[in-house]
Amino acid sequence: MQQVLVSLTSFGASEVRRHGQLWFARLALDAGADGVEVRGELLNDAACELPQIADAMRERGAALVYSSPEGLWAADGSLDRQALEHALAAAGLLGAPRLKMSIGGYGPASAGTFAQLAGALEGRGVELVIENDQTVAAGSLAAIGAFFADAQAAGTPLGMTFDLGNWHWVGECPMEAARTVGQRVTYVHTKGVQRLPAKWVAVPLADSAAPWRPALRMLPRGLPWAIEYPLMGDDLLAVARREIAQLRAVSATLGAPL
Amino acid sequence: MQQVLVSLTSFGASEVRRHGQLWFARLALDAGADGVEVRGELLNDAACELPQIADAMRERGAALVYSSPEGLWAADGSLDRQALEHALAAAGLLGAPRLKMSIGGYGPASAGTFAQLAGALEGRGVELVIENDQTVAAGSLAAIGAFFADAQAAGTPLGMTFDLGNWHWVGECPMEAARTVGQRVTYVHTKGVQRLPAKWVAVPLADSAAPWRPALRMLPRGLPWAIEYPLMGDDLLAVARREIAQLRAVSATLGAPL
Amino acid sequence: MQQVLVSLTSFGASEVRRHGQLWFARLALDAGADGVEVRGELLNDAACELPQIADAMRERGAALVYSSPEGLWAADGSLDRQALEHALAAAGLLGAPRLKMSIGGYGPASAGTFAQLAGALEGRGVELVIENDQTVAAGSLAAIGAFFADAQAAGTPLGMTFDLGNWHWVGECPMEAARTVGQRVTYVHTKGVQRLPAKWVAVPLADSAAPWRPALRMLPRGLPWAIEYPLMGDDLLAVARREIAQLRAVSATLGAPL
Repeated sequence: MQQVLVSLTSFGASEVRRHGQLWFARLALDAGADGVEVRGELLNDAACELPQIADAMRERGAALVYSSPEGLWAADGSLDRQALEHALAAAGLLGAPRLKMSIGGYGPASAGTFAQLAGALEGRGVELVIENDQTVAAGSLAAIGAFFADAQAAGTPLGMTFDLGNWHWVGECPMEAARTVGQRVTYVHTKGVQRLPAKWVAVPLADSAAPWRPALRMLPRGLPWAIEYPLMGDDLLAVARREIAQLRAVSATLGAPL
Repeated sequence: MQQVLVSLTSFGASEVRRHGQLWFARLALDAGADGVEVRGELLNDAACELPQIADAMRERGAALVYSSPEGLWAADGSLDRQALEHALAAAGLLGAPRLKMSIGGYGPASAGTFAQLAGALEGRGVELVIENDQTVAAGSLAAIGAFFADAQAAGTPLGMTFDLGNWHWVGECPMEAARTVGQRVTYVHTKGVQRLPAKWVAVPLADSAAPWRPALRMLPRGLPWAIEYPLMGDDLLAVARREIAQLRAVSATLGAPL
Repeated sequence: MQQVLVSLTSFGASEVRRHGQLWFARLALDAGADGVEVRGELLNDAACELPQIADAMRERGAALVYSSPEGLWAADGSLDRQALEHALAAAGLLGAPRLKMSIGGYGPASAGTFAQLAGALEGRGVELVIENDQTVAAGSLAAIGAFFADAQAAGTPLGMTFDLGNWHWVGECPMEAARTVGQRVTYVHTKGVQRLPAKWVAVPLADSAAPWRPALRMLPRGLPWAIEYPLMGDDLLAVARREIAQLRAVSATLGAPL
């Protein structure tokens, strides 16, 4: 059965900060999720919250991803060691085997920094996965494609978090992205989109105005998928349960690569 | 010249049920259509209406398709013999050489039922065409692609009704669908789409928010096309005439496959 | 650095007719544009305005394109010599080395007219570039593709102005268009799109609902790009400056062909 995580930002930033991620992490598991993605930017007190979430989730055998809001490279192209250490420490407190970051200011000047990165990751027991975010520098296909090519050339292959919806924010086509960098992907953020006059908004896949099914079909199979779109309503448990079931149904009906 | 049919649902379900399909079938021919697609779900009294439509249309040499609202396979994957006989009988009353159905609950358990299907169709003089509908089970590309592959393997090749717009309801891309199953297509439902916040709506091709022209261009040429989007306005004859002319103009300007 | 022109229609037809294109041409250069595209349909008095714009722009070393609103072929498929001469004369008065027209009524009957066209262009020192416009006859991929194939076969290869947004008006996909005729392109009109219920509207690239970045990525590099979407606001200079900078940033981050 498709492994489904819930990115805890899905419950709304204000709500999550107010009640704490532990509360929503439990709700996600109660709704049938296999795990949660804990969000660094929504922690009020990391040192206190992360171990609590870790305990509660470990008890229930939940899968854990830690998402850092910081870019891995600074604006000047240097590896942001502090951001990385900060994120690794948080992932450690959470007991998360997977850390998700975006490349931030990675650029041509950064290609020599993979050895540093590899050194910093060594022995930490954490898999770093790079996500396409909503910025041109760290979310356009050119930036992401060049990054993974450089990482490969430097002998530091990394996995990718493919965010289905974020491509739209930067004018990219998710199908073309899947075709191009899909083989790197180890984790998927499912996110539908609609375009309002002034902005893109994230919506459930089933409400997406974009052809999301072919993009998912092009990605490797058997990967964990996370919900990262608004889960809203009076009965959050029912909403989450429905959306988790919906993702599992999507996965079961994707069919073989066509 | 492009053969153009009008799917009688285009005039609006309530209106069509109120006035009967015969009235709208005549209107469609008066507007220059080459034929009509009669809708099972809009018949008030099939035994009475179908022969009347048959007579009126035969007189004018109109092309006829009968569209059954029932799925050809039941939810448990068995061939729905009753639905098929019901549809064949209706097509017979109508004198329609072509019967359109969707696959309903077709699934892996159904692959052994093609011999039954072939047996039931034998000698009936009706060509069965399968349409991609707006459900995942009978309208996603995985479902449709697997179905046609199975049918081929079972020695029961069937034609497809390619509904240009329905792919959007299930998050598919019509261009990818045309590329993948286009060679099976023997009949085309033209339908533009727009996305409202809460749902997809069918609109004339010329108002479509999707790139519909490349999808049409990828399909085999010389096939009948049907209008299946709202024909509305004070002067229905003029509206239908304009849309039929528009489809013929589209066909004449599609150009060779690029 | 990416060469950026401003199509003067971007400032709004009424405004431009009121103040004259000279005023807006200066504003565009003040905002950092490398040149402007002067619009035939917005001239109030061509004989007076064009030399004034020519002088002012020459002084500042600005790149110039003259855009004729007339189709190059008449509705009957004959070469519209009058329209061509009119446009060449205007381009001459402007001192523009590049003249942009659409193919108008070009069709199968027109294929024999390339020799006439070549003769009329000979020695005029003006490069004619053909734009995909918002009509089926002169903007669908079939029409544009057939035209360039005919021109090539006739030994009159012409460059193309690729308007990123116009494809949507005729139901085409810009990515497919770029894949098909991209190698002909020598000049690019950047234009984002949004679909309103009743019509398409041009918007800045950054507000486009379409995946525009892959289409740009497929086009040849090093070509001049023009802004052709509404530049509006209290401080037009600031708006134009921001959009010009935005295009240069897009160009710098497109990456190599993927």
